[in-house]
Amino acid sequence: MKTLHISIDQKKISYEIDFLENFSELHSRILSEIAGRNHVFVTDENVFEKTNFFTNIPKEKIVILPAGEEYKNWESITKILDKSFEMCLDRSSVVIAIGGGVIGDMSGFASRIFMRGVPVIQVPTTLLSMVDSSVGGKTGIDTKHGKNLIGAFHQPEKVLCCKQFLQTLEFVELQNGLSEMVKHGILGSEDHFKHLENFSEKFKENFLEKNNRIEIENAVFSLVPESVSIKKNIVQQDEQEKGVRGFLNLGHTYGHAMELLSNFEIPHGIGVAKGIWQSVIESEKRGILQNDIDKKRIENVFSNFNISLENPFSLKEIEEAMVHDKKKKDGKIRLILVKKIGEVEYGNL
Amino acid sequence: MKTLHISIDQKKISYEIDFLENFSELHSRILSEIAGRNHVFVTDENVFEKTNFFTNIPKEKIVILPAGEEYKNWESITKILDKSFEMCLDRSSVVIAIGGGVIGDMSGFASRIFMRGVPVIQVPTTLLSMVDSSVGGKTGIDTKHGKNLIGAFHQPEKVLCCKQFLQTLEFVELQNGLSEMVKHGILGSEDHFKHLENFSEKFKENFLEKNNRIEIENAVFSLVPESVSIKKNIVQQDEQEKGVRGFLNLGHTYGHAMELLSNFEIPHGIGVAKGIWQSVIESEKRGILQNDIDKKRIENVFSNFNISLENPFSLKEIEEAMVHDKKKKDGKIRLILVKKIGEVEYGNL
Repeated sequence: MKTLHISIDQKKISYEIDFLENFSELHSRILSEIAGRNHVFVTDENVFEKTNFFTNIPKEKIVILPAGEEYKNWESITKILDKSFEMCLDRSSVVIAIGGGVIGDMSGFASRIFMRGVPVIQVPTTLLSMVDSSVGGKTGIDTKHGKNLIGAFHQPEKVLCCKQFLQTLEFVELQNGLSEMVKHGILGSEDHFKHLENFSEKFKENFLEKNNRIEIENAVFSLVPESVSIKKNIVQQDEQEKGVRGFLNLGHTYGHAMELLSNFEIPHGIGVAKGIWQSVIESEKRGILQNDIDKKRIENVFSNFNISLENPFSLKEIEEAMVHDKKKKDGKIRLILVKKIGEVEYGNL
Repeated sequence: MKTLHISIDQKKISYEIDFLENFSELHSRILSEIAGRNHVFVTDENVFEKTNFFTNIPKEKIVILPAGEEYKNWESITKILDKSFEMCLDRSSVVIAIGGGVIGDMSGFASRIFMRGVPVIQVPTTLLSMVDSSVGGKTGIDTKHGKNLIGAFHQPEKVLCCKQFLQTLEFVELQNGLSEMVKHGILGSEDHFKHLENFSEKFKENFLEKNNRIEIENAVFSLVPESVSIKKNIVQQDEQEKGVRGFLNLGHTYGHAMELLSNFEIPHGIGVAKGIWQSVIESEKRGILQNDIDKKRIENVFSNFNISLENPFSLKEIEEAMVHDKKKKDGKIRLILVKKIGEVEYGNL
């Protein structure tokens, strides 16, 4: 038997995440990024209506998708692909995704498979997508079999985070992002947790009590780069999720089960917060959590963000939902357990 | 403005192409490759009917797609994906593609996007797919906008080339593969060309005159590793087709235009042969071809394989078809011109 050995060096992928103050700055940055290149914008009806950002962009260059997870499917992907063909995009062109995680995931996936890969610039518009889906390169769509089960890795060419989008968010959308940021603190950085703790006091005072939104937006936006850095460090070690990247699922195994059981009445970020709390309780039960103060601090920071940690379901219901959900993914249920703020470890259900 | 830098090292990809003698050897190799792993086979009706290879494989593990380029579409991809969900595949599972280029491309694409990537083992069953699509990792489907315009790069985990499949091929399918092998000789290796030249004399004598098929299959199969090595060397230098990989398009710009003009009556390999011949004539016209003997040798080798180099269309028709075809791809038309056997260069139309 004859054998040939094939070996392909893949290039290092690198890109930058820029943090910008307002739409005017964002607009000119996008123009300079796409200068001389054929392009298509992708957004959803919500973002399109809530911002005046698209006023100066020719309508035929924009794909406006219906908003919501229920449209995260192949039909939306074909809308992006069809527009890309119609505008004669090629591999030297660029797709600009302006939206939350759903728009980012779909634009990333469509641009990954259009002519085997056209670059994408991600402009996340929610706090959650700024701190979460803007790093990592996961892209995809949902199917009847589950969420994000069809997709690909596609690192963006550039990520542009613009503070002015925070103005367009509902309160619960801020909470969704804050939950994810707290998660980053717990799993990777005591410092980041500390900063969020301090911020949460301000948040409670200025927002919940005085509703001083602008001040809160400024403060939270200043914490975004630190939060993204934690995810970045993990993803850089493990792009394809074979090791430490799994830590990013902290709170997600429980959280996703609760989201499912509530028929998605519980928003993702709130589910994650409740899930983190279940992980903390489980870690304490198993003697993994090293001290009680960390538990109190975690409870307190969520409480300041007005996020209820109460679990409306029985543990039995949750475990059944987990088994059903995860069975499809890798056949075993892995939990992320908390040793202390800044350090987690793997465990099995 | 704050900026974060992200940098991700992608791992070196490596895999082996094994050359096997018969189905029994292939069968046991596949069994050992997939041992203990959940899996799905993908093939087409032709391959399924023409070989007894699938007799011992449970039918529920096989996706049998209709045969032909016209089924290289999203509908076929969803059949592979649905079966993968049904069989509960996950990222530790494997897809085994047994077929020609169409089946290989679609199985590669489906496995690339199933849960963001499940490994694929490629078992090419045509001479063309053994020497061409088994190396390079290009995967994809056709759309109404053109061939292979939706897809991704996905290197296989393993390629298994089995000689016994050559028995199942029509004469024109052998010619399709031989054309591609001659192309490899011209663009990268005088040695390979020389071996094909010698083989072509034997081919003419034994096959065209005596129809001694087995002897021909043995001889051509023994040349496959050398031909694959040429493509391998090019792909290893340039996975994403930014430089030398374009040389593999020798004969394809003209050839594809002729295929289009003939409404695909001209098979791919024959189109490539005619296209190579047009490139040689164009290279001679431009004073790039270094000597007339090489032209004669190229003409002769195709003639021995009973492949007509005659061009049934006018140059004007061909150039118009090229513009129409290539405009969608990169806005300019690049030709591969022949300096001598073993060396080519880029030129513009």
